[in-house]
Amino acid sequence: MDNVKELHTPSRTIMTPGPVEVDPRVLRVMSTPILGQFDPAFTEIMNETMTLLRSLFQTENEWAYPIDGTSRSGLEAVLASVIEPGDVMLVPVFGRFGHLLIEIGQRYGAEVHTMECEWGTVFKQDDIIAEMHQVKPKIVAMVHGETSTGRIQPLEKIGEACRALDALFIVDAVATIGGVEVKVDEWKIDAAIGGSQKCLSVPSGMSPITYNERVADVVQSRKKVEKGIATQDELQKQVDISPIKSNYFDLSQLQDYWSPRRLNHHTEATTMLYALREGVRLVLEEGLKERFQRHLFHEKALMAGLEAMGLELFGDPDCKMPVVTCIVIPNDIDGEAVRADLLHHFGIEIASSFGPLAGRIWRIGSMGYSCRKENILFVLAGLEAILMKYGAAINCGAGLQAALSIYEQAE
Amino acid sequence: MDNVKELHTPSRTIMTPGPVEVDPRVLRVMSTPILGQFDPAFTEIMNETMTLLRSLFQTENEWAYPIDGTSRSGLEAVLASVIEPGDVMLVPVFGRFGHLLIEIGQRYGAEVHTMECEWGTVFKQDDIIAEMHQVKPKIVAMVHGETSTGRIQPLEKIGEACRALDALFIVDAVATIGGVEVKVDEWKIDAAIGGSQKCLSVPSGMSPITYNERVADVVQSRKKVEKGIATQDELQKQVDISPIKSNYFDLSQLQDYWSPRRLNHHTEATTMLYALREGVRLVLEEGLKERFQRHLFHEKALMAGLEAMGLELFGDPDCKMPVVTCIVIPNDIDGEAVRADLLHHFGIEIASSFGPLAGRIWRIGSMGYSCRKENILFVLAGLEAILMKYGAAINCGAGLQAALSIYEQAE
Repeated sequence: MDNVKELHTPSRTIMTPGPVEVDPRVLRVMSTPILGQFDPAFTEIMNETMTLLRSLFQTENEWAYPIDGTSRSGLEAVLASVIEPGDVMLVPVFGRFGHLLIEIGQRYGAEVHTMECEWGTVFKQDDIIAEMHQVKPKIVAMVHGETSTGRIQPLEKIGEACRALDALFIVDAVATIGGVEVKVDEWKIDAAIGGSQKCLSVPSGMSPITYNERVADVVQSRKKVEKGIATQDELQKQVDISPIKSNYFDLSQLQDYWSPRRLNHHTEATTMLYALREGVRLVLEEGLKERFQRHLFHEKALMAGLEAMGLELFGDPDCKMPVVTCIVIPNDIDGEAVRADLLHHFGIEIASSFGPLAGRIWRIGSMGYSCRKENILFVLAGLEAILMKYGAAINCGAGLQAALSIYEQAE
Repeated sequence: MDNVKELHTPSRTIMTPGPVEVDPRVLRVMSTPILGQFDPAFTEIMNETMTLLRSLFQTENEWAYPIDGTSRSGLEAVLASVIEPGDVMLVPVFGRFGHLLIEIGQRYGAEVHTMECEWGTVFKQDDIIAEMHQVKPKIVAMVHGETSTGRIQPLEKIGEACRALDALFIVDAVATIGGVEVKVDEWKIDAAIGGSQKCLSVPSGMSPITYNERVADVVQSRKKVEKGIATQDELQKQVDISPIKSNYFDLSQLQDYWSPRRLNHHTEATTMLYALREGVRLVLEEGLKERFQRHLFHEKALMAGLEAMGLELFGDPDCKMPVVTCIVIPNDIDGEAVRADLLHHFGIEIASSFGPLAGRIWRIGSMGYSCRKENILFVLAGLEAILMKYGAAINCGAGLQAALSIYEQAE
């Protein structure tokens, strides 16, 4: 293997809607020697992480722990553990990641009903509630912050309506957790799934989730433990159940692993847990309110800069996601060429989009550790230079002046 | 969150059959700033990792990449992608992890046939082949190195027999990859699953797999891509298929992510990939043959020390796994008290076992970076001291002398 050398990576300014730059303090803890999974020093770290996650999700739920996998592993773990074949599931879709919820739901045998709105907008909550009364779902699953369109869906009325209809309310908060308010208890969210690699500024590879007793009851009713480690009592109980289809994503076993019983399900991803614990600890050290405020502040500077440059922002401003800013690609400009040049010359990464928006918009993330002044200014500077190179009609110099003005006003 | 402080972990000597100590060079790369998942510098790292994994698995397979999850995520990804409901699957069981294969197989709807042998022994390959002729499985799945009993199953004849019966041969090499020979092509293994946290000395959280065209054909025939990102052509083709039940573990999508198409399935677990790449690079830098030899050498010193101390080794010596050594807990000794004292006083972790062997044996791993002289000597010293404390009849001093003698002979 002479041709595979020591790891050597270029320096990048990552301004996509995830993954984003990892906080250097998180990177540092990832060099910590590992502990065995049942070492009391390690189970203490597991417990501390659960405590931190409860604060992050603003919940009193007993269950708040990570799934060992990327963000969609958290989505699949919750859906797989809740959906029994034939269950009616309602998914309001306002972008790409709504389709992922449908996809996972269908694979696990749900009868999925969808409602869609134009990409770039979100739903009126009353429209969703009206649809729930028609469809009578067992599960309502939806995205909170849809990075594909840069929109955020208000949710505070949906959970209450779900309780009234005895439906479970499951929220994909992958892109919002740690960046904007996600009030699990106040909004009566039954299960929420977060992502590590966005506003938490932890590498991808772990998905924190939380769920309440309504979900835990469903999960518990489907409990099945493998023969090699089950107790006799457990083997007798699990004859007539509809077991969760996945072993890896079986929350009934996972919660036993994350409880004092310490069921030997898997070997916890030690270093990723160190990283998640540190990432969430830093979020709480900054303060949730202060952190959300910081995201709004840099968003303001970024938007002011882009608009002063003469660029048009995409989507309904009333439901703009504070941590993702979408830009309409100007006429006659090749969006992919601009992105490639930004990376090549400036080491700056911004994103394109998916499906109907592919080639139509750019997306700039301002999440977590990436959401800071020098990054906002650098992406404005780089974008202006590359757009000028391609002959776009922009107001030279105005973007940075507008952003600087916002930053200096705040000093 | 005043009560959750900066991460601070005690120093440990980890001598379990996994997770084991991470190579310090692997820990170091985990502090590397991340790259975006579609950054050409990152996709190059993905490609390099595939190249390294092919060498590790001793295969020419096109497909060799990690699943983003712990080792059982690799097992589940392969089984979920191959098993269609009603498929006949044969699982020869010689320890706990055989039951896990049954468990996963049943959850995905396989009709699982098992054969069992006493824990501490393995099967004659001809007995497995005879059973295959009876059962006519579509899939034969088995463990290579069973850490629960410390036994290793010879496999070199099974793959050939599977081809003759048109069955797929799937091998759990989680505990053996990088520590003992796993010859995927020569043994005609159709899919093999490795673990990161054992002989590779990488943290848990990533499971490298490889599979050949026989498996890829099954996977491809079940391909389904979510609507948000599928092409029209793909949407038309996927009407009459039996889709893979899991989205996260869908190898048909994962292989598109790991190919030049770069289908946007998940966000690759950046830092874990850095770690896996470095871990496998170091394995190959040491040399597979040399590394396997090193594991045998330290095993010899460990066994000599334990036997000279007067302890009885558990299980059939003809099929002993070189990287796991099982010890019969002496009469009147509380195995858990000894383990607790080893951890408390020496910071040494050894393992107990499962099911019928719980409380009957200890298990000492000598894997990867943990498999080195000072660790072998330290575990012998610590074990002797704690056994003396509990009044066990051991030959004081003899264990270390026997091990030292082997180390000095080799100098």
